[in-house]
Amino acid sequence: MPDAPALDFIFHPKSIAIAGVSAKEGAGFGGGGFVASLQEIGFRGPIYLIHPTAPAIRGLKCYPSLRDIPDDVDYVISSVPARFVPQLLEDCIAKGVRVLHLFTAGFTETGDAERAKMEQAIVARAREAGIRIIGPNCMGLYVPASRLAMMPGQPPEPGPVGMVSQSGMNAGEFVRYATPRGVRCSKVISFGNGADLKAADFLEYLADDPETGIIVSYLEGIQDGPRLARVIRRTAALKPLVILKSGRTEAGSRAANSHTASLAGSLQVFDALCRQAGAIRVESLEELTDMAVTFQFVKRLSGPNIVVVGGGGGASVLAADDLAAAGLVLPQLLPETQEALAKVTDEAGTSIRNPIDTTSVWEDEGFEATFRPVAEAPNVDVILYHTGFGTGPMARVGDVRTRMARQAETLGRVQRESGKPVVVAIRPATNVEGFQQSLDFQELCWRAGLATYPSIARAGVALGHLLRWQRMRGDIPPTP
Amino acid sequence: MPDAPALDFIFHPKSIAIAGVSAKEGAGFGGGGFVASLQEIGFRGPIYLIHPTAPAIRGLKCYPSLRDIPDDVDYVISSVPARFVPQLLEDCIAKGVRVLHLFTAGFTETGDAERAKMEQAIVARAREAGIRIIGPNCMGLYVPASRLAMMPGQPPEPGPVGMVSQSGMNAGEFVRYATPRGVRCSKVISFGNGADLKAADFLEYLADDPETGIIVSYLEGIQDGPRLARVIRRTAALKPLVILKSGRTEAGSRAANSHTASLAGSLQVFDALCRQAGAIRVESLEELTDMAVTFQFVKRLSGPNIVVVGGGGGASVLAADDLAAAGLVLPQLLPETQEALAKVTDEAGTSIRNPIDTTSVWEDEGFEATFRPVAEAPNVDVILYHTGFGTGPMARVGDVRTRMARQAETLGRVQRESGKPVVVAIRPATNVEGFQQSLDFQELCWRAGLATYPSIARAGVALGHLLRWQRMRGDIPPTP
Repeated sequence: MPDAPALDFIFHPKSIAIAGVSAKEGAGFGGGGFVASLQEIGFRGPIYLIHPTAPAIRGLKCYPSLRDIPDDVDYVISSVPARFVPQLLEDCIAKGVRVLHLFTAGFTETGDAERAKMEQAIVARAREAGIRIIGPNCMGLYVPASRLAMMPGQPPEPGPVGMVSQSGMNAGEFVRYATPRGVRCSKVISFGNGADLKAADFLEYLADDPETGIIVSYLEGIQDGPRLARVIRRTAALKPLVILKSGRTEAGSRAANSHTASLAGSLQVFDALCRQAGAIRVESLEELTDMAVTFQFVKRLSGPNIVVVGGGGGASVLAADDLAAAGLVLPQLLPETQEALAKVTDEAGTSIRNPIDTTSVWEDEGFEATFRPVAEAPNVDVILYHTGFGTGPMARVGDVRTRMARQAETLGRVQRESGKPVVVAIRPATNVEGFQQSLDFQELCWRAGLATYPSIARAGVALGHLLRWQRMRGDIPPTP
Repeated sequence: MPDAPALDFIFHPKSIAIAGVSAKEGAGFGGGGFVASLQEIGFRGPIYLIHPTAPAIRGLKCYPSLRDIPDDVDYVISSVPARFVPQLLEDCIAKGVRVLHLFTAGFTETGDAERAKMEQAIVARAREAGIRIIGPNCMGLYVPASRLAMMPGQPPEPGPVGMVSQSGMNAGEFVRYATPRGVRCSKVISFGNGADLKAADFLEYLADDPETGIIVSYLEGIQDGPRLARVIRRTAALKPLVILKSGRTEAGSRAANSHTASLAGSLQVFDALCRQAGAIRVESLEELTDMAVTFQFVKRLSGPNIVVVGGGGGASVLAADDLAAAGLVLPQLLPETQEALAKVTDEAGTSIRNPIDTTSVWEDEGFEATFRPVAEAPNVDVILYHTGFGTGPMARVGDVRTRMARQAETLGRVQRESGKPVVVAIRPATNVEGFQQSLDFQELCWRAGLATYPSIARAGVALGHLLRWQRMRGDIPPTP
């Protein structure tokens, strides 16, 4: 807690200098990538480039060294080779820089003792001078409110999700997959080797950050186990905390060590810690993304009873299996609910039992008339609608765009008026037209306040996690 | 065995009559859908439509009844309501029809005793007259060599995969997902309630069908358990057999009963049968599709040792976990392999250990120079390449199309020359450009003979199944 407000300054730089930008235009990875990302998201302060000879790169003036920059610089991104970092650090100290983000790799993670020693020396010198280091071997920060981005394509609108990731790629992939589903972030942190600032520092910060309501994390190693355990317990008590811990196999542990010099530790111990702390441990980046969607849009369930609505018998049967296996309950529909559905459903080849497999969802009136009685039924806690684009009945509808807009609007209204979450599973498309329509429908849905998932099974796993998390907190009555 | 050749005639109709086509153009589901699908795939014989009043629909002449058709008809598709089926059957008998495909639903699956009785009466009458029934409540056949299709978009080229599916939707989804990954089919059968011809009949047929090398199946219920068990044992002894059995939960069993009147039976018993028979039981349609890809393209592994190649440390660590958890082994690379890789790999931020995380895969020369030493190493059985499109380094390459064509060509050549399978995992795209590129790369890969998967985890699960299947057959030495 005492550290958290103190750390706030690293997320709000006033000016940035980048060392190690190639003079060759179009160099997309490394320093040039940071320049492009910051320009795209619209960083509001000055960006200074450090280059030994080039006068300007990407329209920005270059300086031979950090010390040559005439104005104040509080944040430096290093993309220079590892051997130049000690000199850059001395320049940072001379210049009064407060944060050094080392994209630069080639330290402890190489397995080379000399390079590990160099990393330690850099951290010791920085601490002495009061400079905090993010990294090395990381992508740094994505903070929409500060217009900081680590990769191109990251949206400028902020949101409630904070992320702490040991891998820059996985942080980027999380944002890339979560964004089109409506997830928006407060702070995303890639911290690599964590030589100075570690997972525990960032988790502790996010736990106290008023802009962060949900925390997700990708961890490869355990640094200072007892402190991390304390921080996880405290963070999970304050906010939903979802953790993807790699290194669950011997091969994964070896890879983690080679990637960020991480010592993975025992998964059993970590798993026990999460259970005890009330943190949700997931097994994949997909599941981590699904949980961010679930906590941002579904928030909570009043119970385990789910009703499935969609066209297609085979999908319905698999849906029932997948959802029940995830810990949800598919209640039998009450007679009055079935009567209401019978009015809008052809009898043959359909089912008004749960899952509801009905062609009425392909008609405008039938659509609302199917969802309304289900949402009003007393034995229903959440409704799942599944659909797909590019083939099947929706592909043959004249005006798909109008149809999907009405569907999203209706589902959003049903969710609002009934107070029961409505979630949407959109089957993966196999052609470009279907993919574009799926993206469009996904956006219409999240803008209407709905959680979207790429499959029924993934929706089930996420809702199952939410349910168990609520139960752990005594939030809903345990099921029979 | 005696039945199998006898059943061959149902897959080779000379002429088809369809009853229950709407006169309204554009009616996509039901009779009109079959007309459109048969026209699209280019059915070679005449297609007759039965309609009480319309003179022609979709350019095809209509007849008031089956008996009014002047020529021979050997195959009839029924899309009329259930109550008209008995009369249609009498017409079939009078006309000498050999196969009646009942798309028509509304029989036993409704749970109504009268309707169940009607279904039984129809089957009894058909048997008496020597007519075989496919269905009711099903999509029937997709047989490329006979130019029969059950849905639009099914390709006319035949291939080695046969499918027996109780659900038409799941058969269609299987074809839709498997086709862009290069899977081609011999016969795909949707048989619904299985009132006459059942799963066992079709499996027995495919076991003996010379055009079928791989068999996948989606089953909801167990009809005549002892016979099905015998057929599964015999089929699995002859060909790779992969089964997705729904009804693994109580909710799923209920849904199966409501969908195809199926009694799901005990999953434990079914699972034991599969294990004993050497059939592979999978948990989802995605996994079923992955196994078709794996048996068609990978075929067999010489051992469990997999090397992972791609850019991105976070993805590499998760890859190692996912593959090891699936039962594969990530060997440490030999010194000579590492030396060869060191020549083409930047040192910082990359790894030439396994997983290999290297920027060299984004360069033309580096690409081949990375894969060749790996494929030549004696401690490697299979290589996995992972990549993605629409963001990241590949998005910034000038000519993506040329680059991806070279990559697919190189990987295909490495696979051929080394005799070791190379498989490709393509991360899901999040924008239309990336999606189109992913589809293009996927096609280039399968045309080069490579198995493709939508994620590393799914590739791992599929290869793990293959490995255990081979071990069960004594095909590779068991691993330590």
